[in-house]
Amino acid sequence: MQSCAKSWGFLLAKSVNPRAPCRRICSKNRIFGKLQNRIQNGKSFVTVRGLQTTAVYASRQIERILPRHDDFAERHIGPGEREKREMLEFLGLESIAQLIEDTVPESIRIQRSMKMDDPLCENEVLEHLQKIASKNKVWRSYIGMGYYNCSVPPVIQRNLLENSGWVTQYTPYQPEVAQGRLESLLNYQTMICDITGMAVANASLLDEATAAAEAMQLCHSYIGVKTVLKLPHEMDFSGKDVSGVLFQYPDTDGRVEDFSALVDRAHKGGALACCATDLLALCVLRPPGEFGVDIALGSSQRFGVPLCYGGPHAAFFSVKENLVRMMPGRMVGVTRDAAGKEVYRLALQTREQHIRRDKATSNICTAQALLANMAAMFGVYHGPQGLKHIAERTHHATLILAEGLKRAGHRLHSEMFFDTLKVGCSVASRDILERAVQREINLRLYSEGVLGVSLDETVTERDLDDLLWVFGCESSAELIAEKMGERVKGIMGSPFKRTSKYLSHTVFNSYHSETNIVRYMKRLENKDISLVHSMIPLPITWKEFANLHPFCPLDQAEGYQQLFRQLEKDLCEVTGYDRISFQPNSGAQGEYAGLAAIKAYLNSIGEAHRTVCLIPKSAHGTNPASAQMAGMKVQVVEVDKDGNIDMANLQALVDKHKANLAAMMITYPSTFGVFEESISDVCRLIHQNGGQVYLDGANMNAQMMGAKGLVHATEVAILNANYMAKRLESHYKILYKGFCAHEFILDVRPFKKTANIEAVDVAKRLQDYGTLMIEPTESEDKAEMDRFCDALMGIRQEIADIEEGRMDARINPLKMAPHSLASITSSTWDRPYSREYAAFPLPFVRPETKFWPSISRIDDIYGDQHLVCTCPPMDVYESPYEEKRASS
Amino acid sequence: MQSCAKSWGFLLAKSVNPRAPCRRICSKNRIFGKLQNRIQNGKSFVTVRGLQTTAVYASRQIERILPRHDDFAERHIGPGEREKREMLEFLGLESIAQLIEDTVPESIRIQRSMKMDDPLCENEVLEHLQKIASKNKVWRSYIGMGYYNCSVPPVIQRNLLENSGWVTQYTPYQPEVAQGRLESLLNYQTMICDITGMAVANASLLDEATAAAEAMQLCHSYIGVKTVLKLPHEMDFSGKDVSGVLFQYPDTDGRVEDFSALVDRAHKGGALACCATDLLALCVLRPPGEFGVDIALGSSQRFGVPLCYGGPHAAFFSVKENLVRMMPGRMVGVTRDAAGKEVYRLALQTREQHIRRDKATSNICTAQALLANMAAMFGVYHGPQGLKHIAERTHHATLILAEGLKRAGHRLHSEMFFDTLKVGCSVASRDILERAVQREINLRLYSEGVLGVSLDETVTERDLDDLLWVFGCESSAELIAEKMGERVKGIMGSPFKRTSKYLSHTVFNSYHSETNIVRYMKRLENKDISLVHSMIPLPITWKEFANLHPFCPLDQAEGYQQLFRQLEKDLCEVTGYDRISFQPNSGAQGEYAGLAAIKAYLNSIGEAHRTVCLIPKSAHGTNPASAQMAGMKVQVVEVDKDGNIDMANLQALVDKHKANLAAMMITYPSTFGVFEESISDVCRLIHQNGGQVYLDGANMNAQMMGAKGLVHATEVAILNANYMAKRLESHYKILYKGFCAHEFILDVRPFKKTANIEAVDVAKRLQDYGTLMIEPTESEDKAEMDRFCDALMGIRQEIADIEEGRMDARINPLKMAPHSLASITSSTWDRPYSREYAAFPLPFVRPETKFWPSISRIDDIYGDQHLVCTCPPMDVYESPYEEKRASS
Repeated sequence: MQSCAKSWGFLLAKSVNPRAPCRRICSKNRIFGKLQNRIQNGKSFVTVRGLQTTAVYASRQIERILPRHDDFAERHIGPGEREKREMLEFLGLESIAQLIEDTVPESIRIQRSMKMDDPLCENEVLEHLQKIASKNKVWRSYIGMGYYNCSVPPVIQRNLLENSGWVTQYTPYQPEVAQGRLESLLNYQTMICDITGMAVANASLLDEATAAAEAMQLCHSYIGVKTVLKLPHEMDFSGKDVSGVLFQYPDTDGRVEDFSALVDRAHKGGALACCATDLLALCVLRPPGEFGVDIALGSSQRFGVPLCYGGPHAAFFSVKENLVRMMPGRMVGVTRDAAGKEVYRLALQTREQHIRRDKATSNICTAQALLANMAAMFGVYHGPQGLKHIAERTHHATLILAEGLKRAGHRLHSEMFFDTLKVGCSVASRDILERAVQREINLRLYSEGVLGVSLDETVTERDLDDLLWVFGCESSAELIAEKMGERVKGIMGSPFKRTSKYLSHTVFNSYHSETNIVRYMKRLENKDISLVHSMIPLPITWKEFANLHPFCPLDQAEGYQQLFRQLEKDLCEVTGYDRISFQPNSGAQGEYAGLAAIKAYLNSIGEAHRTVCLIPKSAHGTNPASAQMAGMKVQVVEVDKDGNIDMANLQALVDKHKANLAAMMITYPSTFGVFEESISDVCRLIHQNGGQVYLDGANMNAQMMGAKGLVHATEVAILNANYMAKRLESHYKILYKGFCAHEFILDVRPFKKTANIEAVDVAKRLQDYGTLMIEPTESEDKAEMDRFCDALMGIRQEIADIEEGRMDARINPLKMAPHSLASITSSTWDRPYSREYAAFPLPFVRPETKFWPSISRIDDIYGDQHLVCTCPPMDVYESPYEEKRASS
Repeated sequence: MQSCAKSWGFLLAKSVNPRAPCRRICSKNRIFGKLQNRIQNGKSFVTVRGLQTTAVYASRQIERILPRHDDFAERHIGPGEREKREMLEFLGLESIAQLIEDTVPESIRIQRSMKMDDPLCENEVLEHLQKIASKNKVWRSYIGMGYYNCSVPPVIQRNLLENSGWVTQYTPYQPEVAQGRLESLLNYQTMICDITGMAVANASLLDEATAAAEAMQLCHSYIGVKTVLKLPHEMDFSGKDVSGVLFQYPDTDGRVEDFSALVDRAHKGGALACCATDLLALCVLRPPGEFGVDIALGSSQRFGVPLCYGGPHAAFFSVKENLVRMMPGRMVGVTRDAAGKEVYRLALQTREQHIRRDKATSNICTAQALLANMAAMFGVYHGPQGLKHIAERTHHATLILAEGLKRAGHRLHSEMFFDTLKVGCSVASRDILERAVQREINLRLYSEGVLGVSLDETVTERDLDDLLWVFGCESSAELIAEKMGERVKGIMGSPFKRTSKYLSHTVFNSYHSETNIVRYMKRLENKDISLVHSMIPLPITWKEFANLHPFCPLDQAEGYQQLFRQLEKDLCEVTGYDRISFQPNSGAQGEYAGLAAIKAYLNSIGEAHRTVCLIPKSAHGTNPASAQMAGMKVQVVEVDKDGNIDMANLQALVDKHKANLAAMMITYPSTFGVFEESISDVCRLIHQNGGQVYLDGANMNAQMMGAKGLVHATEVAILNANYMAKRLESHYKILYKGFCAHEFILDVRPFKKTANIEAVDVAKRLQDYGTLMIEPTESEDKAEMDRFCDALMGIRQEIADIEEGRMDARINPLKMAPHSLASITSSTWDRPYSREYAAFPLPFVRPETKFWPSISRIDDIYGDQHLVCTCPPMDVYESPYEEKRASS
């Protein structure tokens, strides 16, 4: 479940030169781009430039006696000079340059330095961004189309969106130290189920469009859907050849329509009914779950998430009970831990791409966890009364506006609406639009004479007056309201009115005051381990970035455009590609887009028969699914014992498939942490045989490097990884030896036989040591890495104790890990090892600073057998200590 | 140790109408003003207005169907409607109105409604403040005079200054749950000692001026200093009638001078030498501790604290070893806890005003803890090399500028300077100032032809070029630097150069990367209990508020001026006074200013003989000290058993002193939580006898109320207090019964006899229950109050168990409290009660959520006997678990 900070993807491409057959397409990597990089803890980019300019500076006297203010420290690089020297010494190396020579094959080092702007310190970056932000114009946008202004509760913005305790968290694969986020996502799922009236919801999808596509694929049970656009009454299911129907309620024009007959007809014709809908509307509108819909989906943006020029926002996806095991995306479920307590974890993980790889049929593993959490907290903070208040208020405002428009002679497309009006204008729409410009208001333009207006929770009386003036209505909102009296009730007076309750669970009825919601968010945050806790000044929360509608006129978004241009320039410079597309908004989407582009290119040159896609075992896990979605056939390429592509096998496969070879996908460096020297040969081979190479840059941070313009951060990351590998090599078997790139793999498989210890036991035991780090980036300092190595060496000693009979083979700290605070502080302690051994195995694990797993080991099997994906009843939240006092 | 959010005071006064003898002066309260009130958790003000306007709104139809967006919830009021009803029922009351009638004497309720602006929701407040902020003009100010631009490290700004975990903390009187801030303040003290070369420093004072005044009082050992201004060489100590000398190094004109001879002469004459100095300069300059100075003081603003138009900033105050027990203000010291671990606490608390009351001779108890912590973290983040780098860089910039100015024909006042130049201009200073305006630069104007420039760490090459242009120098910084070469070394080439080391302690050499400093700050924060953890969008960190120099031209500060005007208007409206002074920047200063004004008024009307000041026992603790400082004689007035002023005693005292009666000071409502019905009679009596009444509004929140415009927040605070008092009254003796105002007092004195339990045991045991709340404000909800009452009732049961012999009289959970995590998780547990009983005494105290005291009970006596006020050696930081593993 990636956080939004990591969920952007992009697509890089070589310009197509018709005379050069060698073209490459590259997509997907972890570089989040200059913007984010410069702001957060400022990793790679800033440093690259820092080194360059230092070299230049040295020639100017003034910069010797008046150096840059921040030159004396590399704030975001963990190890200092002394530590770096110590690590090099330990590795038996003279210099970092020597390390790089030994690690990165010369053939793949770039031989030029990079052209980029001077480095900036964080204060300068923020100042610079403020200037860029001021080029965006924040008009009032009533365009709608799935994007609405909303009032982001400041208490949630500050304590969740701007708080790295929530923003930067990893995928909660270790539920014992992620109960906070899991609880919040379970709230999200419960909220979606309640509001849509559906039985099960997932923990969000990437965006509404993805959700809609996934819905149709679910209906079809297979990739490759044929789409037909029809009006509801034109739809014919009698041929039993329709797998699913998707309709919108309320629709994009604002109309609220009764779809129950359509749903019935679809079911009779053997098709499933999918409904794209709006959470706020459903707070007053009969929900799709009450008229037979099988899948309900939409965007949860307007639940407290800023517009941000179009995203990221969390899509919701909910289904009937019988479809739960076919649902795409991640889902949080309830299970129990080793102590029998009800706890949360990712449910049905067996469907995850990291496990099923080439069997996967969907590449969607990216949720918008952060934004789903924002929306969930919006629901928790407002509760059912609050949400209903907001929905009614929005609807009332629309009723007033509709009344005013009619009085001014305009014609409404529909009389039954929630917040959106399609207006047939009684005067030239040009005049109306001109007045809108005067008031800095954006409307939706359908065509000459037809305009759209979508209201939202932020609308005030003054906004209504402005809109009335824009549409040439001479009355005011106050006067119209006065005359309307109580008689116009809109939805509330119609059969569409919602009568069922929602959000009756205690969690949505307890945290409506600021004090309480802050404490609740903090309580959840504190259950989750976090490598760095810090507040992030997210420029996306500045109003100039946050409040821009994605369909506002381009000249209002000049600031955004500048960012895009600059980012494209820098990324092309770093990667050596010619152009970039920012369209794909996740890595997996980037893969799909890349392969689709390759396929389209091949089709365009008459090579449509090329459909074979080669994917090495070392490739990133979503690759096979993406290839299948792009209509290609996957052929797996073997890797050798060092993790390199098996060139003989590759050659054989290319020979076999060369007539139909479409592409090869390579993750570089590989997920095994290897820089493959053969990369150039591989590319040549594929190109020579008419294929294209898709490069997955998921681990691309470590590639940004040239022989001269060395990336210091990357150097340190490589140094760190090699230092750790060296420290551990006499204790563990390390796969793919020699100097590694940025990560390495410890082989714990032998311990299964010698001590009945598996990887999961080591991982859970690491929680007791209070450290989860396994990928040493450049921001970790030597002390932190030493602690991690000490932990792993401590665990190795514990394994030896089992192997040699000093420790019980069944009841030992590894099998019993992790040890929660509840278990350690209990009067009852019947283990053959001490409390201290369990909880404070090394001196640096100390009671004052230790991070405690909040539960005992998770029971996944139980959870999958008893699938519960909404908030459990309240007694779960009660204390295990309730009865203890009486007995003490 | 108040946080800055609470350290503002102000002074309200009736206009002096010569025909009306009845005048009152009122000062000091906890209202932090509209600005802060609206922003933080928005307490009283917002609500006041909310109610008013709701009443108005009800008459407009549009506001029934389109209510204010945030009307449906009172976000900052803890209890909801249902809870309020439950509490009223429990109290046997019909309505809140009835409660108020029973609590607040009718005679003192205001009979009018208040005129204030409409309420705003938080988003609107921020928008409004942005408009106000934009009226401030942020020019580059090189004015100096104790205020310097600085580069606030964003990582500190976000994680400390904008983090309520640091901002809103209470005075760390309970060191077991305040080790984090105490450690940071100890770092501050260590940093001050190291940099000034002095032996001991306190944890900061209010501002530099206060520090200077306190220094002179310390020299004199008594209040009432006569001040004479002389040049150093004119000073004559031979008469042995001088108690102290205060000089500045470097001085306000920038000159660095050798004061060692002066210090020697002072000492020979029996006087102490005090030095006002600059922390950044001392990073390269020989420190005052090395030439015999007795007291060194100054401002630590430029260590990472924004200018903010003049404050708040933390002053530092450091002395020689022999003066430590005479040092004003608070000091953090090292002691040990019950487990023998070295820990921190406020040292020498016996000097605190809350203990010595009428014996106090200084009313300064306010430290600037938050800003001292910011400065300390600045030192921790930069370390000795970093600070030296900043100091050298600043000095180099000044050397370049000085060279340029001389080339342009200007004359320097001194050739030995650190960062400040006093310039005799070779052209009309008007021309220079005009050019400065063109570049939006502020300079210091001494007089025609004499200007001042003070540089700082933020100065860039471009800034220097601008300054050179302003002064008519045709060269550039680069060219000047080129020609200067290595030969001009300034201080570095002079006898003033600092040779001694500083900040060699590990804490200043470990956290220079962002990752590390964030983790360190978070580790400290997590040791401290905090009632609400939330991020605060402090507008003071906006550049338009943060970067304004206090002496910039008034027309650049229009935004600030508007805030002052609005705040004055609102405060006058709330209090019924005519004018307000914002000068006093702490409550204690407000008292002093108020009494000084009274004294000046009495002197002006020929009543200088009036010097007696009456102060009831129930008055706020700093009052007697302030009265003495203002040159008055304190006469204590008795209170009756209900906490009211003893009117008979008052009458007798007035009769006795009426010829010399100057003033009476009243805290209202009193610290016993009582609204005194006799307040009007008291005022009348004092006025009739020629005295003035000073009202201490320390508890004024609960006074902001009128018969009609009822303050809802106040009502709820009163409801909360009475609900708790009622719940507890059958378990504890409650002093001053009947309905109380906003607080009440539990009498635990009887338990000393029955169970050997004292107040401190109850307070420490409350830590185990995880709740410290004792003043129920309106923001606590019923559940929180119930938990607190449950805790107190649980403790009462524990006391009963001792009284009745079921629990050991010596080793029981109260005497052993608090129980740290280390003690609970230890293998060794030899107490006659269980671990659960100790740590989880009630069901709501749960392992996942409990806040743990980080140490065992503090040993104050040991600390006072072994006074250590700087960071202890590193072995203190090591783990008590180091040896455990081997033995397990």
